[in-house]
Amino acid sequence: MYAPAERSDFVVIGGVAAGPKTAATLARRLPGATITLFQKETHLSYAACGFPFFASGEVNSFSELVNTSYGIPRDADFFRGTKGFNAVTSAEVTAINRARKTVTVKMLEGGETIEHGYDRLVIATGAVPNSPPMPVPDSERIRPFTRPTDVVAFRELAQRGEVERAVIVGGGFIGVELCEAVSELWGISARLYEKQPQLLPYMLDPEMAEIVKRSLEANGVVVATGADVKEIELSDDGTPVVHVAGEGPVGADYVFLCLGVHPEVRLARACGLAIGETGGISVDDTLATSDPDIYAGGDCIESRHRLTDKPVFMPLGSLANRHGRVIAENLAGNETKFPGVLGAFLLRAFATNVGGVGLSAEAARGAGIQANAVWGAFADRPDYHPGTKKFTAKMVYEEGSRRLLGLQAVGEGDIFRRVDVFSSFLQRGATVEDLYDHEHGYAPPFSEALDPLHHLAGVAAAVDRGQGFVGPGAAGLAAALDDGTVLLDVREGEEAEDDPLPRELADAARRLVVIPLGELRDRLGELDRADRIVVMCRRGPRSYQAALILRDAGFGNVTVAAAGLQALE
Amino acid sequence: MYAPAERSDFVVIGGVAAGPKTAATLARRLPGATITLFQKETHLSYAACGFPFFASGEVNSFSELVNTSYGIPRDADFFRGTKGFNAVTSAEVTAINRARKTVTVKMLEGGETIEHGYDRLVIATGAVPNSPPMPVPDSERIRPFTRPTDVVAFRELAQRGEVERAVIVGGGFIGVELCEAVSELWGISARLYEKQPQLLPYMLDPEMAEIVKRSLEANGVVVATGADVKEIELSDDGTPVVHVAGEGPVGADYVFLCLGVHPEVRLARACGLAIGETGGISVDDTLATSDPDIYAGGDCIESRHRLTDKPVFMPLGSLANRHGRVIAENLAGNETKFPGVLGAFLLRAFATNVGGVGLSAEAARGAGIQANAVWGAFADRPDYHPGTKKFTAKMVYEEGSRRLLGLQAVGEGDIFRRVDVFSSFLQRGATVEDLYDHEHGYAPPFSEALDPLHHLAGVAAAVDRGQGFVGPGAAGLAAALDDGTVLLDVREGEEAEDDPLPRELADAARRLVVIPLGELRDRLGELDRADRIVVMCRRGPRSYQAALILRDAGFGNVTVAAAGLQALE
Repeated sequence: MYAPAERSDFVVIGGVAAGPKTAATLARRLPGATITLFQKETHLSYAACGFPFFASGEVNSFSELVNTSYGIPRDADFFRGTKGFNAVTSAEVTAINRARKTVTVKMLEGGETIEHGYDRLVIATGAVPNSPPMPVPDSERIRPFTRPTDVVAFRELAQRGEVERAVIVGGGFIGVELCEAVSELWGISARLYEKQPQLLPYMLDPEMAEIVKRSLEANGVVVATGADVKEIELSDDGTPVVHVAGEGPVGADYVFLCLGVHPEVRLARACGLAIGETGGISVDDTLATSDPDIYAGGDCIESRHRLTDKPVFMPLGSLANRHGRVIAENLAGNETKFPGVLGAFLLRAFATNVGGVGLSAEAARGAGIQANAVWGAFADRPDYHPGTKKFTAKMVYEEGSRRLLGLQAVGEGDIFRRVDVFSSFLQRGATVEDLYDHEHGYAPPFSEALDPLHHLAGVAAAVDRGQGFVGPGAAGLAAALDDGTVLLDVREGEEAEDDPLPRELADAARRLVVIPLGELRDRLGELDRADRIVVMCRRGPRSYQAALILRDAGFGNVTVAAAGLQALE
Repeated sequence: MYAPAERSDFVVIGGVAAGPKTAATLARRLPGATITLFQKETHLSYAACGFPFFASGEVNSFSELVNTSYGIPRDADFFRGTKGFNAVTSAEVTAINRARKTVTVKMLEGGETIEHGYDRLVIATGAVPNSPPMPVPDSERIRPFTRPTDVVAFRELAQRGEVERAVIVGGGFIGVELCEAVSELWGISARLYEKQPQLLPYMLDPEMAEIVKRSLEANGVVVATGADVKEIELSDDGTPVVHVAGEGPVGADYVFLCLGVHPEVRLARACGLAIGETGGISVDDTLATSDPDIYAGGDCIESRHRLTDKPVFMPLGSLANRHGRVIAENLAGNETKFPGVLGAFLLRAFATNVGGVGLSAEAARGAGIQANAVWGAFADRPDYHPGTKKFTAKMVYEEGSRRLLGLQAVGEGDIFRRVDVFSSFLQRGATVEDLYDHEHGYAPPFSEALDPLHHLAGVAAAVDRGQGFVGPGAAGLAAALDDGTVLLDVREGEEAEDDPLPRELADAARRLVVIPLGELRDRLGELDRADRIVVMCRRGPRSYQAALILRDAGFGNVTVAAAGLQALE
């Protein structure tokens, strides 16, 4: 039984990521202090980012998401014995009483309500699912995917074979991860509906999101973007029926509501703390709230974007953990600042890795920044190495200043190094030219002699020298082709035969000409100097070399299809 | 047949990495210029770093190391037709005549000698193997591993089944890579002899090199460090016999001489160009030699280390390619600087990845820098994720200024991200505290919520707060234990039973005490406050937490075994 202390030096509200991290660090810094953490749920310190991998069956037991790496559950005993602070579960803080410096706590099991004093308070209440904008009946088979109970409920149904058809409403981070989770082990047929015209809106630009969509589709997921889910009903047998505008009713055995989350700030707002324009708790760069005795971290706060200096809401477990350290250091008297966020993310959709950091081109332009973008298609190690895997990347930078703004990368290859390195370049306000000085580790099983980031800097330099590029996808390449365009394929004859350009591209152009790059200097007569030419190859470099040969030969209107055919796969 | 031009605007000597990269970039920047590249060998632009993977059979045909990624050989026709410059093979430049601005070229096939004028010259003559310091007979079965002919010769013998026993003399980069190359596919039994007391000297500190050694041994390679190879002879049947001090004669079917390389500067020296103290051609930060009309790049130059500002010789293909771009830009009139080197490297030894960047602790101290080091043992993603893999890392930083100096990482996990990110932090002169601000991409299939680099910064902070650590291996942990020490194992009982501490550690201490961390606060009576205690766990964090508990309880002499048992595996 929990015997409430009357008062603790430090009280922490919330027991998932930022809360326990704060409390544990604080206990190490100030071993004499009393620290009490209140957690509404029964579970503490669970790995919420691991939920999709428990749902999928990759992670066998839910307890693995709660245990330490050496198999001990992170429960109240663990936190008291090992970490040196009190964690109280099933204890809902219902009010913060700033004048008295207490919190009101409702003990969910016993039902009693106590008041517990604090000297300094930490709010780590996390985020909660957005309410669906459409009518949704109450059902165990229609749920968000954020709480342990959601995840366990789905897994049990799946394991019993009761889910054959899943509908995922919302194509953000969790929605995309769930496509793989439900399909791979359970063989559930999945349909994904996203209201925006693309998957992963705000995170990726449309042409990069197209690659993710193709990857989901190649793995049997039915993906509809720009899809308006009007209503969800229950059929007579209790299974959901999803109504999508312009589509017949879609039956499902389970519906995931992946409609995003918003910061849980009810306590903070009720006690008069400042709330930011994104809906998160306002904090300064020490993570103090508008009350200097109250700090906040994790998914409930509003962050500052390092590139735009604007407030953003960015619920990521990696940030929450870093918040915890910063708060604890400040509470322990070691002034420490949180530098703001860049939005680094990674996710997996089947064999396709998706990642990014910084601003997409759309986000940059939306923030009033004059943004340029370049693309590249890469192998993550030399093509001669049997382990080589591909990926496509887009780099965004500011026109004029050439300040780096963002990187997006999609593919089976090692995008992780590049996202993380790019993040560190963004952190220091680096320019395109700084990328040339990056010294990467090189060995054929792991990388090429020049890194993709070097090549992206090179493409940006080519843009400056006047070479025109079009990006992949519908907004780029497809839009650049019309009946006045010659599409020039400079791949080898065998490649062009084995892996022809998509028919819709060839059809969109006036004509398709295939001249291998090595023969181009000798076969210029097959082209007209007045033509508008778009050059295409597998990844881009050959097209660029071809464009230079054509320019030197007096062709005035030559555009390179950036990232080539690989970006269209 | 080659018809020599009398004179080219640009002449490039050397056709492997820096040479072709310079010529190709220059041809793009200055399409009207005449550019001639002379290459002594018959092959151009081959992927020398891929040799071990051709030797191993992973790369099937030597032509893959010479072809473009789309299957076209990088020969003279390719460079003329596609890249726009003349490449002349089997053409050995025998003299640089600076007064006349010509090079003397001996055509190795026809035998004639020509003189070819230049306006600007680029030297990219690479490096050549060091001569063995011991007597070595002339034999096709005793060779370095640097030229295409060496590699093809070995592969042919191996493929014919004529090599059952290989001896590798020299445990540097190539020697270690060859252990895997000969063992894996061909099943050759390999013995590696290294003169220094450790493998990979200068690149890794001894305790990190011990991990590599154990990995080779676990894969059946016999490794002897501190081994003095006195002489190599030929037996009557023509197979080599290796004589090692203190060991009987070792018969072999093939001996690899991996004794390092030195810059090939004979041409440069003969024409009076400045040669640096490391033996490489002296260049300024635009890569111009002491003659402003002559540039040099690749393995033949002396580099400047970015952290010590001292000259170093660093033959790496990734640097050579970056040199090529810098030289070409400068020759094209776009002033561009090369920022010096950090020494980022990666290599693979069986399933163990090895990498580093910057200075080892020994190298830093050798350069007169007051260097501290911390260690960490990590999983590259959460332990609950089935794909998780381990690695051990060491971070070196300057005492006082806390400037970052170097990272070394060894293990099966994703060390690549960390080496590359650390490299970018070194590039900007970052401190330990800057690592906390690193925003990495996080998702359970790829990473943990906090990155190993965050944890390493945390260990460095713990050192500052007075916590003592000992590094792994013979120089650290083994040296810290004596008959006055209590070795405290704070792992769970089951872990300690399933995977007991190495007997030699337990034996070296006065006594071994096993108390799981969660019970430590309640079982302090089993320890004596006057004891010298070394705490041990699997990876280190539990030991650190235990040390804090003990310190708070009045124990005055508690040291943490950094990186725990994992670093000893």
